[in-house]
Amino acid sequence: MNTLIIHAHPEPRSFCAAMKNVAVETLRRNGHEVVVSDLYAQGFNPVASAADFASRAREDYLVYALEQRHAGGSGSFAPDIAAELERLRWADLLILNFPIFWTSVPAMLKGWIDRVLVSGICYGGRRFYDRGGLKGKRAALSFTIGGQRHMFAADGIHGPIEPYLQPIERGTLAYVGIDVLPAFTAWHVPYITDEARAAILEEYRSWLAELPEAPPKRFARMRDFDESMRPVTSGERAPA
Amino acid sequence: MNTLIIHAHPEPRSFCAAMKNVAVETLRRNGHEVVVSDLYAQGFNPVASAADFASRAREDYLVYALEQRHAGGSGSFAPDIAAELERLRWADLLILNFPIFWTSVPAMLKGWIDRVLVSGICYGGRRFYDRGGLKGKRAALSFTIGGQRHMFAADGIHGPIEPYLQPIERGTLAYVGIDVLPAFTAWHVPYITDEARAAILEEYRSWLAELPEAPPKRFARMRDFDESMRPVTSGERAPA
Repeated sequence: MNTLIIHAHPEPRSFCAAMKNVAVETLRRNGHEVVVSDLYAQGFNPVASAADFASRAREDYLVYALEQRHAGGSGSFAPDIAAELERLRWADLLILNFPIFWTSVPAMLKGWIDRVLVSGICYGGRRFYDRGGLKGKRAALSFTIGGQRHMFAADGIHGPIEPYLQPIERGTLAYVGIDVLPAFTAWHVPYITDEARAAILEEYRSWLAELPEAPPKRFARMRDFDESMRPVTSGERAPA
Repeated sequence: MNTLIIHAHPEPRSFCAAMKNVAVETLRRNGHEVVVSDLYAQGFNPVASAADFASRAREDYLVYALEQRHAGGSGSFAPDIAAELERLRWADLLILNFPIFWTSVPAMLKGWIDRVLVSGICYGGRRFYDRGGLKGKRAALSFTIGGQRHMFAADGIHGPIEPYLQPIERGTLAYVGIDVLPAFTAWHVPYITDEARAAILEEYRSWLAELPEAPPKRFARMRDFDESMRPVTSGERAPA
């Protein structure tokens, strides 16, 4: 299983980086190929802009997704996008490993999503969700968070964590056809003891070991929607 | 009313930029002061890193929020953070104006959030939600999106849009004490006629005119939670 880890933390000795290192070791020991895109170490540029395309479909006005489709045909992506895209296409499993910043991914990782998940290859036309361009791949979020589990309970101050993950899990990964596996959450990391951190790394090893067999979450299926993306009734639905 | 518009679109002639221009004109005509942070035009750096602090509390290991609190005390924020923070503190109303990228904000805007909403000033200790550091300010999202309204209906392919906005509206703006006003959504923008776009700008003018009186959304209240952030029962709750 070819695994790509996208890691985005500004401190190389962080606990989040330790999780990345444990993932590399554990997956390799279990016989998988592993490649890491360490976005801060690479000095990755997270800003989607006209500079992302060596040649342009429209020089005068930037429609980012249009230029992505043009660049896919003409091979004119900026080198950093082309390199990440090659790694992504090679991967069977994608792990996004990051600290939660503002109940979401850091801008660095959001920029990897904005620039690398290109229209025309990863999605487009009617290739979304279970017909997405990256169908067949699997992915999981793996993150550290300052808050405690009870703060994200149903009656907790922030409410359940799932809606906060929805833009990434459903609106991004599932949208491009990737099967989304259960996330790993390292709770309350800045405030806990070394012993508690070691215990989290043990849990993390178990999560990694179970990842290849983990059942994906369920999202929308294209056959439940018509050409204009309106829901079809069960009588109208085509056989699966 | 002092209004700060944070605008983040890579094409200066985009419809999203036209919305920003309409907001500036409309609010000024209605007697408000308006400042725009045009993040792409400014070449804003969205990457949170050690370079954000001229002096450090801990030189050997980056704890970003700790350094934010240190920089707030010593005045050692990077100049671009200090400038944005000054604008933010001046503002009574904040409008985040952006194109939806991957059911969320572009990395450029996420980086403004990551770097400018600093610990120690905007939140911290027990200053969250209705006790947040930016209490008294109001904010609203104003965005363009490729999808159509029915795709984000309850039975739509993507489901309701509210959970996608939750990391920004609840996990960010409400968290720092800002009252969140109803968002403005410009649907299906890349695919519609000039006439349809003009109609959206008219709707947008009405939205802007009503914004000062718009009722904020309701989120968590700190008095409903105890010292360890566990929910209190109504019998235990202190008077409001």
